Amino acid sequence: MNIVTIVGSIRKESYNMQLAKTMQERYEGKFNIKIADIRSLPHYDQDEENNPPQAVKEFKEAIANADGVFIITPEYNWSIPGVLKNALDWASRVDKVFIGKPVMTFGATMGTLGTLRAQLHLREILLGLQAKILPPAGTEILISSAHQKFDEQTGKLMDEGTLNFLDSTVEKFIDFVKSV
Amino acid sequence: MNIVTIVGSIRKESYNMQLAKTMQERYEGKFNIKIADIRSLPHYDQDEENNPPQAVKEFKEAIANADGVFIITPEYNWSIPGVLKNALDWASRVDKVFIGKPVMTFGATMGTLGTLRAQLHLREILLGLQAKILPPAGTEILISSAHQKFDEQTGKLMDEGTLNFLDSTVEKFIDFVKSV
Amino acid sequence: MNIVTIVGSIRKESYNMQLAKTMQERYEGKFNIKIADIRSLPHYDQDEENNPPQAVKEFKEAIANADGVFIITPEYNWSIPGVLKNALDWASRVDKVFIGKPVMTFGATMGTLGTLRAQLHLREILLGLQAKILPPAGTEILISSAHQKFDEQTGKLMDEGTLNFLDSTVEKFIDFVKSV
Amino acid sequence: MNIVTIVGSIRKESYNMQLAKTMQERYEGKFNIKIADIRSLPHYDQDEENNPPQAVKEFKEAIANADGVFIITPEYNWSIPGVLKNALDWASRVDKVFIGKPVMTFGATMGTLGTLRAQLHLREILLGLQAKILPPAGTEILISSAHQKFDEQTGKLMDEGTLNFLDSTVEKFIDFVKSV
Repeated sequence: MNIVTIVGSIRKESYNMQLAKTMQERYEGKFNIKIADIRSLPHYDQDEENNPPQAVKEFKEAIANADGVFIITPEYNWSIPGVLKNALDWASRVDKVFIGKPVMTFGATMGTLGTLRAQLHLREILLGLQAKILPPAGTEILISSAHQKFDEQTGKLMDEGTLNFLDSTVEKFIDFVKSV
Repeated sequence: MNIVTIVGSIRKESYNMQLAKTMQERYEGKFNIKIADIRSLPHYDQDEENNPPQAVKEFKEAIANADGVFIITPEYNWSIPGVLKNALDWASRVDKVFIGKPVMTFGATMGTLGTLRAQLHLREILLGLQAKILPPAGTEILISSAHQKFDEQTGKLMDEGTLNFLDSTVEKFIDFVKSV
Repeated sequence: MNIVTIVGSIRKESYNMQLAKTMQERYEGKFNIKIADIRSLPHYDQDEENNPPQAVKEFKEAIANADGVFIITPEYNWSIPGVLKNALDWASRVDKVFIGKPVMTFGATMGTLGTLRAQLHLREILLGLQAKILPPAGTEILISSAHQKFDEQTGKLMDEGTLNFLDSTVEKFIDFVKSV
Repeated sequence: MNIVTIVGSIRKESYNMQLAKTMQERYEGKFNIKIADIRSLPHYDQDEENNPPQAVKEFKEAIANADGVFIITPEYNWSIPGVLKNALDWASRVDKVFIGKPVMTFGATMGTLGTLRAQLHLREILLGLQAKILPPAGTEILISSAHQKFDEQTGKLMDEGTLNFLDSTVEKFIDFVKSV
């Protein structure tokens, strides 16, 4: 199964990027996971949408060709980061590559609320994009107290309970992709 | 009264930019309105927030020095544009220039719902930023059918009903700025 | 196809009840539509959920036996009416009759925004209930200026454009029910 | 300072009712707190709003006469309980007793997310009601793992960290009431 992962934070030590890398390694038998480079996308400009820069073309092609998309994001100011929304804005136009695309969302934060507000906004946005969202009740990956769950040296997610929940939810996503 | 206006769209013929310009001209006796350049801000990166590029410094300084902020934005994919969220993400960090800042929001769209979904997300984001938001009940500037209300030649907002409502709501914002 | 319709307003001349009745008549060849009596449900009380009053039992049974549910609701105070939420609260407990149930939502209002805020809240609630919601992009039934679209004498929805959109969206719902 | 407290749950052993009682006792030198009886309010019906039952009259009068309102609520199905929304629906009509009224919100739950979704809906509803909401950033009372923080025998909130945060936030509310 070919998966494109979009990470909402572009800082180097991002827990969300670490989660993306943990999943890439942990599920390599299940998925071929490619992490998208959203930093290289310029600000979305409607005047350029029909003839966008190469980075935009490649980003959209990767999504168009994927069997599913993982969006792994921190919460910035009670919503998703601008850089993530910008990537979704490009993807929403002209060939509209999210229509019918299976999507699963994740978030990690040092706080206690696990990016819930960001996920709520993200889900509304994805409904607008006509993506197929994994039904959220019982499958929300909201990682709180991230600094206690990721290994400081290797960066990898180490918390057993979280990994178990992740494993079982990823299985649900596989079933979901096959069913839609 | 010094106002910074942030426009959520960066395309050339944006109705929201036209609204910003209409207001700049119409209220020049009341406000000194400066339109911020958010296109020149790079993607927010936490690793750079303590020593950001010059464009970020200038953007934040302009807000810090303003008596109030107008945010005029289209709706993209049932939320605010990434480029606007990105500007707010920079402004939210280190010196946090939106804390206590009076803000009024506006939106124009060719559709019928007047950017309502974008405004709902924007308001939650602004609460997270600790801005002082003009109480929305009765003051929401949601311009629908924009193509019928702006002049095709001059680009200016021409619809009388909308202009009257804008005038009276702007007066409420002036009172609000004085009261907080 | 057996449909239960839940109407969010209990006043006599409710436009939303009129919409329910219009649909009952207009689609009688397609659906057997039963309008639920939510007024007779007491306030939800967790202490009584295992042995609820007869009205609650009948309401839940009707939903359990339906092929799909229509929720037709006004907007009260930027959300759904309490009486509607109360009905959903009962339905969410013990036998949880909304799990996997196909649902389509509608709203009519005299204002311009067509109950959009109520629908946004309702959709989050339905996700929490694990209902199967008709994907909203392009299928939102948001009837604005209701007083101009319903006949004052008969109460029926008369606006041709709205009826056409309703017809085509109802067909999408039929396909949706068959596919889930 | 006269405070009306509205509790969103009507079950007997509700943690939210226990929080209301804890506050009534703990802050008796600061506030005269009256807990409203929302169970006795019938379902809101627009046809009766001009001549409502006695229970509705008393509920609205209590709010009209209060210096501020506490709303303490569980989360039901990712939103506020119907019985709470119903009380707010009555209060929103005819004499509209929430206009300009200072309000602080609280929530307790056995889960980890502390009623955050309910609070987000509640805040939008209160903006629609034109209440004066204590600015939420840094003042959100979201009590998670309630079963570990309330005493099983006495029912009282016992968790020191939560009580300290409650104390300091209540002081902010007192300042807020005086300032609006």
